Amino acid sequence: MARIGVTGMGTMGAALALNIADNGFEVAVHNRSPEKTRAVVKGAGDLAERLAPAENLEDFVGSLTKPRAVLIMVNASAVDAVIEDLVPLLEQGDLIVDAGNANFNDTRRRAKSVEDAGLLFLGVGVSGGEEGARFGPSIMVGGTPEAYAPIRDIIEAIAAEFEGDACADFLGTDGVGHLVKTVHNGIEYADMQLIAEAYGLLRADGRDIDRMADLFGQWNDGPLQSYLIEITSEILKTKDRDTGRPIVDVILDQAGQKGTGRWTVIEALKMGQSATAIESAVAARSWSALSDTRAAAEAAFPPDGRVAEVLDTDLEAALLAARILTYGQGMALLEAASAEFEWSLDLARVAEIWRAGCIIRSSLLDDISAAIRHGLPHGQLLLEPAFVARLHETIPALRRVVTAAMLNGQSVPAMAASLSFFDTLRRARGTTDLIQAQRDFFGRHGFKRVDRDGDGFHGPWAD
Amino acid sequence: MARIGVTGMGTMGAALALNIADNGFEVAVHNRSPEKTRAVVKGAGDLAERLAPAENLEDFVGSLTKPRAVLIMVNASAVDAVIEDLVPLLEQGDLIVDAGNANFNDTRRRAKSVEDAGLLFLGVGVSGGEEGARFGPSIMVGGTPEAYAPIRDIIEAIAAEFEGDACADFLGTDGVGHLVKTVHNGIEYADMQLIAEAYGLLRADGRDIDRMADLFGQWNDGPLQSYLIEITSEILKTKDRDTGRPIVDVILDQAGQKGTGRWTVIEALKMGQSATAIESAVAARSWSALSDTRAAAEAAFPPDGRVAEVLDTDLEAALLAARILTYGQGMALLEAASAEFEWSLDLARVAEIWRAGCIIRSSLLDDISAAIRHGLPHGQLLLEPAFVARLHETIPALRRVVTAAMLNGQSVPAMAASLSFFDTLRRARGTTDLIQAQRDFFGRHGFKRVDRDGDGFHGPWAD
Repeated sequence: MARIGVTGMGTMGAALALNIADNGFEVAVHNRSPEKTRAVVKGAGDLAERLAPAENLEDFVGSLTKPRAVLIMVNASAVDAVIEDLVPLLEQGDLIVDAGNANFNDTRRRAKSVEDAGLLFLGVGVSGGEEGARFGPSIMVGGTPEAYAPIRDIIEAIAAEFEGDACADFLGTDGVGHLVKTVHNGIEYADMQLIAEAYGLLRADGRDIDRMADLFGQWNDGPLQSYLIEITSEILKTKDRDTGRPIVDVILDQAGQKGTGRWTVIEALKMGQSATAIESAVAARSWSALSDTRAAAEAAFPPDGRVAEVLDTDLEAALLAARILTYGQGMALLEAASAEFEWSLDLARVAEIWRAGCIIRSSLLDDISAAIRHGLPHGQLLLEPAFVARLHETIPALRRVVTAAMLNGQSVPAMAASLSFFDTLRRARGTTDLIQAQRDFFGRHGFKRVDRDGDGFHGPWAD
Repeated sequence: MARIGVTGMGTMGAALALNIADNGFEVAVHNRSPEKTRAVVKGAGDLAERLAPAENLEDFVGSLTKPRAVLIMVNASAVDAVIEDLVPLLEQGDLIVDAGNANFNDTRRRAKSVEDAGLLFLGVGVSGGEEGARFGPSIMVGGTPEAYAPIRDIIEAIAAEFEGDACADFLGTDGVGHLVKTVHNGIEYADMQLIAEAYGLLRADGRDIDRMADLFGQWNDGPLQSYLIEITSEILKTKDRDTGRPIVDVILDQAGQKGTGRWTVIEALKMGQSATAIESAVAARSWSALSDTRAAAEAAFPPDGRVAEVLDTDLEAALLAARILTYGQGMALLEAASAEFEWSLDLARVAEIWRAGCIIRSSLLDDISAAIRHGLPHGQLLLEPAFVARLHETIPALRRVVTAAMLNGQSVPAMAASLSFFDTLRRARGTTDLIQAQRDFFGRHGFKRVDRDGDGFHGPWAD
């Protein structure tokens, strides 16, 4: 008999189950096709003795001690069906945990429907890829404290640690765990795109790939220290087994996406926010799919020049500035979501549980959590004194890299979007007065005035 | 008795009713609060004799000849309620037209529900602001040919004309009219933002506002000829009556938005497309609301330099290049939507009916419709030979303006997004090979190879 069960023995589900077992807990395991369950148990080595495999859902539920806790880790499209099958087998006080990459709107709906059936529900974001799931992911929990209490010790035990602090926490009600995970992934998209842009500039400059690997390795010892920079260095060192060529040279430049980047931008827009750095990364992936179009476009518009002069002096600082600005957008989005859905989200805690285990873990997140605890003026990371200082140090480099790249026809959409965000937000007097005038001119939408209160003023053209 | 009735006597509904009457048709008019209807009739002058005002919905429907045609022009949030009230009063073969700014997803739902009730339904986009609605808008019709037939003569009579061709057409089934109108508005957002960025650069350079008005006036005689450039010149000439100051100087720089810009970006993302130029305009409006934040940010990061040298030589061509790229994104989005919803949308026809009447009307749209009729390689406007030539002429100017602006801390998010789109799309070999390597490294997502067919290859790190 086990306190918790995992259904869904894909890469992530299997890794989580093994992680639970590795931390000394018995865990029931189940998959729709039982061969997968058997394969996981077979490959589990010594941990197999803590795995309780079940061939069907009834046996799976039957192997759990009451109150039962079932963790679902299946594709987003299958979650509703699994819940539907589970609910009749469970009883009041039992807990369903959706630990997959759900859209938080679905999580809100599911939380309500499962709770209406007398059960407990958690929507949980798990980040860290397979490695993280197996040895310590970052875990973002949404639901009710009553639902979290029975499994809290397990969740904290399997999570990554940052200086002794578990990278897992209860963040608030219903969909908050999955929204925070979605925004995490959106930031991940942007960070990966920024790194790819730096890589693109270096490649366009004809740099040796092994020296590029060393450069990323060096950056990983400085303020850019992060998992994504670290694995970039590893990847650039890696040769393809079959051809002996650098592995990146044999990989087709068409990036896949599973939706969380897009969701981040869509949710931002629905809340009146804009996550342009993330959107630029989503766009770059979308356009990467158009290989034939890109070949035709390159033939019509051949490449321009190189940007050698800024790469050695400015690229590291430029990446750091762009990363800070991306976090500025992501954190503002979480703040807006918290207000909209009344989550009272502890943003600093979010940054803290991202410091280890997850894909975007970085030394910067330790500084971000400290800055948030210190207080963000106007809710903006880029106005917190420590970050004002860092941006003063790094923005000029970002400016030089972006403009050198764009002048020479290189593609740096995410760096450019970050810089545009910064330069738009730091204008006390912007240019939308003209836009308001246009809207009033053609549509009588009205405007506010700088010199008096009230709304709905019109220009003389309205007469 | 009238062949058509308009319910909703707001700015747009009243203007459309007067337009219909002005073209010789009797038109029934109705509003939920009858005072508005009376005011419209009272202000209609000679046209009042062709208006048939009704105090309630029953009388309104009763004043229509059969089969009846009712055109709804109310706020998006009220459309469902109006339809619900109307349906029981109508009979088989009668027609409901939603001519407001509906989300096309709602239109698809409404078309189905109204048709299930045995009635005909059209979702119609109307662009041109109040002036257009009164004297000739651009009209984008979606629904069934059977529903359009009874009012086609009226729609074509009230629409704008471009060289004798009515700027109105039946574009396809269910939501297509409203989606095309949504994308029209998205392009409008981007075009307004691009103009505001040019204005911002000129202002930051300390240019005299009357000379700026002249400059926009000159541009309106060249390849930038368009309604939005024309009214920008008018607006910059306009003084505030109370203060004598230029009107733009008394208008608060906080831009409103009613949602169609956001919808465009959201629908693009849902279809795997990216409309980054439009999103940058949506973002600029969102950030404009944060006046206090912007003031604090300007204090923390004071303004940089000016960009004088490029303004006289490059700004006009830069705006044209950015406008072309924005249309490239918008047209690709319409093409994707047509494929997704099986609309067989005639893109050239869309460009044609945008040539007059609507807010984005411009001489460029005549060239765009010709280019689409000529055939877009890979579905991309920017690969059509005439546009390849124009971009070769203008992209260097856009590059110089964007980089001069960004080097000097000026805000040009939409110009920069347009250029990033261009530079990303014209790379035969991009940088997402690294992103695919990262995704495989941390999540075993697999990749395609450049040197063989198939999918799901992994790097050696997967062992």
